[in-house]
Amino acid sequence: MPFSMSQASLPSFETSLNALSAILDKAAAYAAAKKIDPSVLLHTRLSPNMFDLARQVQVAADNAKNGSARLAGVEPPRYEDDETTIDHLKARLAKTIAYLQTLDRKAIDSSAEREITFPLGPRTGQMKGADYLIHFLLPNFHFHVTAAYAILRHCGVEIAKGDYFGAIPIKMT
Amino acid sequence: MPFSMSQASLPSFETSLNALSAILDKAAAYAAAKKIDPSVLLHTRLSPNMFDLARQVQVAADNAKNGSARLAGVEPPRYEDDETTIDHLKARLAKTIAYLQTLDRKAIDSSAEREITFPLGPRTGQMKGADYLIHFLLPNFHFHVTAAYAILRHCGVEIAKGDYFGAIPIKMT
Repeated sequence: MPFSMSQASLPSFETSLNALSAILDKAAAYAAAKKIDPSVLLHTRLSPNMFDLARQVQVAADNAKNGSARLAGVEPPRYEDDETTIDHLKARLAKTIAYLQTLDRKAIDSSAEREITFPLGPRTGQMKGADYLIHFLLPNFHFHVTAAYAILRHCGVEIAKGDYFGAIPIKMT
Repeated sequence: MPFSMSQASLPSFETSLNALSAILDKAAAYAAAKKIDPSVLLHTRLSPNMFDLARQVQVAADNAKNGSARLAGVEPPRYEDDETTIDHLKARLAKTIAYLQTLDRKAIDSSAEREITFPLGPRTGQMKGADYLIHFLLPNFHFHVTAAYAILRHCGVEIAKGDYFGAIPIKMT
């Protein structure tokens, strides 16, 4: 059974974060073409009490970084949430992908039964590694990438499902 | 390494589909309280060329059903897309969950290296089972559940992240 915890996490995070970076390029091009201040896009929300685009991108990146680090049993670096431009956010995504590439896959692979503890607002959550990956980390990560994508679709940026998936290993006939 | 393809798919689908069913209950209660025709919610979209709520729910359910069946190597049943009420959609979710429970977990577990072919509009996609699960099925499934959730948040339904996650195996302290 060639299937592992690292295989179920790192490649998907990397592909989706790269996809999100390319989506931000399309957002920047759209803003330039329509003469929209890009910060209007970065501050758009789908509902007044949901995160805006900039925060959705930060949280997606932090899900990948912090979640993978917890599975690997190491302390993740903390990034300041000080991005104010699309280029800043793209740099945050690139830095996150570079960090994911430093993680020990074997440590992640051995985490399925290990108890993972993580902050949830003022409280602490605890789950077995496999449950954490499948029931929390992946649904949460894909949630924030989808929310970022949906905000930009809502704003009129011409992106489609292929932009969301990114460069996945698929053969089309 | 107690981690498997079936573990990475079925329990997450079941939990999220149940979560989506409970979210639809809150949508129905909101419509009743605000005297909104529920079909207005079912036909709401985040962008004119994205799916409406009803279709997001159908597609999320079909992702779980068809994707899991393909990994198990069996032909999934085809459900008509004829739901016109929240109750109909909840029945579709329940039927889908019941179907997932009939699938052979061992067949799914042995699918990581098997080539999976699947329709993508007028074309056909082909991926190894593990890649299909991680790079296509899970991102796509969570996309449509998130979109359904986001449409309802956008409409003012009072739901929060816990409603999106559903009954996940977490210990909070």
